[in-house]
Amino acid sequence: MKRSGGSAVGIKQTRPVVRAGTVTTPAGVRAAGGHCGIKPERPDLALVVTDAPAVAAACFTTNRMAAAPVQVSRSQIASGRAQAVVINSGNANACTGEAGRRDAWEMVDLTAGALSMSRGLVLVASTGVIGVPLPMDALRRGIPALAGALGPHGEDAAAAILTTDAFPKTGAVEIEIEGRAVTLGGIAKGSGMIHPCMATTLSMVTTDAAIAPALAQAALRRSVERSFNRVSVDGDTSTNDTIFLLATGAAGHAPLTEAADPAFPIFQDALDALTEHLARLLVLDGEGASKVIEVSVSGAASEEDAQRAGEAICTSPLVKTACHGGEPNWGRIVAAVGRSGAEVDPDRVAVSIGGVVVVAAGLGERANLPAAAEAMRAAEFGIAVDLGLGAGQWTGWTCDLTERYVRLNSGYLT
Amino acid sequence: MKRSGGSAVGIKQTRPVVRAGTVTTPAGVRAAGGHCGIKPERPDLALVVTDAPAVAAACFTTNRMAAAPVQVSRSQIASGRAQAVVINSGNANACTGEAGRRDAWEMVDLTAGALSMSRGLVLVASTGVIGVPLPMDALRRGIPALAGALGPHGEDAAAAILTTDAFPKTGAVEIEIEGRAVTLGGIAKGSGMIHPCMATTLSMVTTDAAIAPALAQAALRRSVERSFNRVSVDGDTSTNDTIFLLATGAAGHAPLTEAADPAFPIFQDALDALTEHLARLLVLDGEGASKVIEVSVSGAASEEDAQRAGEAICTSPLVKTACHGGEPNWGRIVAAVGRSGAEVDPDRVAVSIGGVVVVAAGLGERANLPAAAEAMRAAEFGIAVDLGLGAGQWTGWTCDLTERYVRLNSGYLT
Repeated sequence: MKRSGGSAVGIKQTRPVVRAGTVTTPAGVRAAGGHCGIKPERPDLALVVTDAPAVAAACFTTNRMAAAPVQVSRSQIASGRAQAVVINSGNANACTGEAGRRDAWEMVDLTAGALSMSRGLVLVASTGVIGVPLPMDALRRGIPALAGALGPHGEDAAAAILTTDAFPKTGAVEIEIEGRAVTLGGIAKGSGMIHPCMATTLSMVTTDAAIAPALAQAALRRSVERSFNRVSVDGDTSTNDTIFLLATGAAGHAPLTEAADPAFPIFQDALDALTEHLARLLVLDGEGASKVIEVSVSGAASEEDAQRAGEAICTSPLVKTACHGGEPNWGRIVAAVGRSGAEVDPDRVAVSIGGVVVVAAGLGERANLPAAAEAMRAAEFGIAVDLGLGAGQWTGWTCDLTERYVRLNSGYLT
Repeated sequence: MKRSGGSAVGIKQTRPVVRAGTVTTPAGVRAAGGHCGIKPERPDLALVVTDAPAVAAACFTTNRMAAAPVQVSRSQIASGRAQAVVINSGNANACTGEAGRRDAWEMVDLTAGALSMSRGLVLVASTGVIGVPLPMDALRRGIPALAGALGPHGEDAAAAILTTDAFPKTGAVEIEIEGRAVTLGGIAKGSGMIHPCMATTLSMVTTDAAIAPALAQAALRRSVERSFNRVSVDGDTSTNDTIFLLATGAAGHAPLTEAADPAFPIFQDALDALTEHLARLLVLDGEGASKVIEVSVSGAASEEDAQRAGEAICTSPLVKTACHGGEPNWGRIVAAVGRSGAEVDPDRVAVSIGGVVVVAAGLGERANLPAAAEAMRAAEFGIAVDLGLGAGQWTGWTCDLTERYVRLNSGYLT
C-alpha cells in the first residue's frame, strides 16, 4: 500500500482539491523544525511563526487528564490572537503536576524571548510519552536555535511533531475570495490514542484568509466535528490532543466576520477538505494499520443514532480484525450496531461491504460473500449500513486491527 | 500458565469455596452433551433436564440484534418455570429473521416431544456463527438421541456449549440451609464478544435450593451485575448472551420467598461466588489471552464514576497491550481514566500495578517501575487506581490483548 502524506487520499470531487503544502504555504507564515535532544536522534521540536499577530482558534482534548501544555494553551487562546506556536515531540508533559505546568510556561517564555514578542502571543503543545518531566535544558538550547532558522520550512515542522507515525501528514488547499488567492495549509501527527468524541490529535492549520476570531473558532469546531472527530484507530483518547488554526489575513480580502458572509462557505469548505484530508492520513498511518475503512450509516432514526452505530462499528475489535483478514463477517457488523444503543429493527438492516450487498432486509446474501471478500483486499474500502428507519446518517473512518498494532504497543517504553 | 476449568481461581476466602462440579451436581438434575452435526466433529448439542418442573430465572443480552433463541426464551421465562434447557453451539441462529424464530421454536418442540413435557417448560439457547440458518435436520436427529442419554453428565453438557473456548468452564458450591446440604452448579462458555454492560455470555446454573421465582430472578440479576457484567475480553457484546438459573427445590428446605429471609444471604453469596468464578474463567480463556488483570478503582466521587473509570481501563487496547508486554505504562492507565467521564483531579490520582505504587499524588514513581514490570510477569495481577475523591469503588476483570487475538479473529470464518 502506497503511503504518501502529500497527496489527496480519496477526497470527494465536490470538495476543494487538497494539494501538496504545509503550514508555510499560506502567505505570512514561517516555520522551522529540528532536533533539540528530547528524542535520541529524530526531529523533536517545531516552531511556526506568523509575520504579525494572527487570529487564532483551537480545539483541545476532552480527556480530564489534560496535559500541562493543553492547560496553558487553553488560557492563552482566550485572546483569539497568537503569533507563534511551539511544539515538541517525544515527551507529552502530561501527568507531570505543578512542575509540568511551570515547564510549559517556560516553553512559552523561551519562545517569546527568542522572538521578542509578548508571551501572550505564544501557544504550546507537546506529544509523546506520559509522566516524564520535560528535559528543559534541551528546550532552553533548542528554542532559540530554532527561532534563528525560521523560513518556508513547513515540511521540517511536520516531521518534528511526529511520534510513532510512519510518515508526515501535510496538505494545502487554494481558494478564491473576492478575486484574491487564499491558501490554507496544515500538518498533523498520529498515530495511537485516536478516537471519535475527542477534540483531535495534534494538528495545526494556517491560512492567509482574513477572519474574525469567533468565526475562526466556529469554523474550526465545525471542521473538527466532521473530520478528526470521525476517525478511530484504537478507541483511546490522548491527554494532549490539540488543533490550532492561525489566520494571518495576508491574502488581503475584507475580513470574514459572520457565517452569513457569502464568502464564508468557501472558506469553511476549504477548511473541511483540509481537516478531512489530514484526519484520513491519521487513519492511513494508524498504528499497525494496513487498511482504511470508510464506515457509513444511513437510514438511522436520528443523526445521534447514526453516529452511535457508526462509532460502534469503527471501534469494534472484531470488525477491525475481520477487516484485517479480509473476512466479510457481517455478523460482527450487525452485532456492533445492535449493542450501540441505536434504534434497530433487525428485519430492516442492510449492509454492504466494498459496494457488495451482504445483508438485505436483515438476512445474509451468502452468494455475494466471495465478491465482498474480494473487495476487502483493497487498501481502502467502505462498509455501509442502512438501518431503514429514518434520515439519520454519519460517515467516519477506521483502520484494521493487526498483529503489528499489538507488537508496536506491547513494548513502547522499552 | 495453567488452564484448568474445574478449580477455584483466586476466589476471595471470605466467599464460599468453589469446588469441582457442574449443572448435574445439585440433586434432581440430569444432562447430556454430544455431537449432532452442526460442527464438523466437536460436541455441539447440550440438554439439561430437571426431574420435575423447576423455578427458572434468566438474564439476556442487551444487544438489540437479539438472536431468535433469545427472543423465544425471553417469552418462555415469563412463567418463572422450566424443566429443560436445550443449547446448541456452532451456530448462533442470529440475524436469521422469521425462519430463525421458527427454527428456535422447533428446537423447543423437538425437546418437549422427546421428553414428553409441555413446550412451555423448555428454554433454548444457541451460540456460534451469526447469520447462517440452523441445520435443522441435525437437530431433528440429535435432540431425541440426546434425550435418551440423560444422566449425571454435566461435563458433557459443558463441553458441548463451547465455541472458540480452550477449555470447559464449570464449578459448584455447597452451602447449608436449615441444616440441609444445598448445592449450586454451573457451566459457561466464552470467549469473544465479552464486555461489561451486557447480560452475560452463555451460561447456566442449577441448584437444588427451593426459592420463589421472583427472588430467584432478583438473586440472578444481582450476581450477574457483580460477575459477568464486570468482565471484558474485547468490548463487543454478543447477540446471544444468556444465563439461565434452574432451582429444583430437591434439597428439601422451606422455600426462600423474600430477600429478608435469614437464609437468603447464604444462597446469594453462593450464587455470587459461583458466577464470579465462571466469569473469571471466561477472562482466563479470553480469545488469545495470556494474563488475567483484576482492575480495582477506589476513591471515586460515586459508584458510577468508579465503574466508568474501571471499564475504560478494562477496555483500553493500549492498557491491554501494555499488560501483554509487561510494560508498567501507567500513562495509558491514567489517560483511560481521564477519558472515561469520571470526575478526576489529576493531582490526587494514585496507581499501583501488582501491588507496586507507580503513581502517587498524580506523579510517577519512576524508581518503582522495575518492580512493577516484574509483578506484571505473573499470569494474574492487579491494577488499582485510587482517585482520592470519595467512596466510590468498583472491581472488574480483563485480559491482555495479544497477537494471537488478532490471528484468531482475522480468519474465524475460513
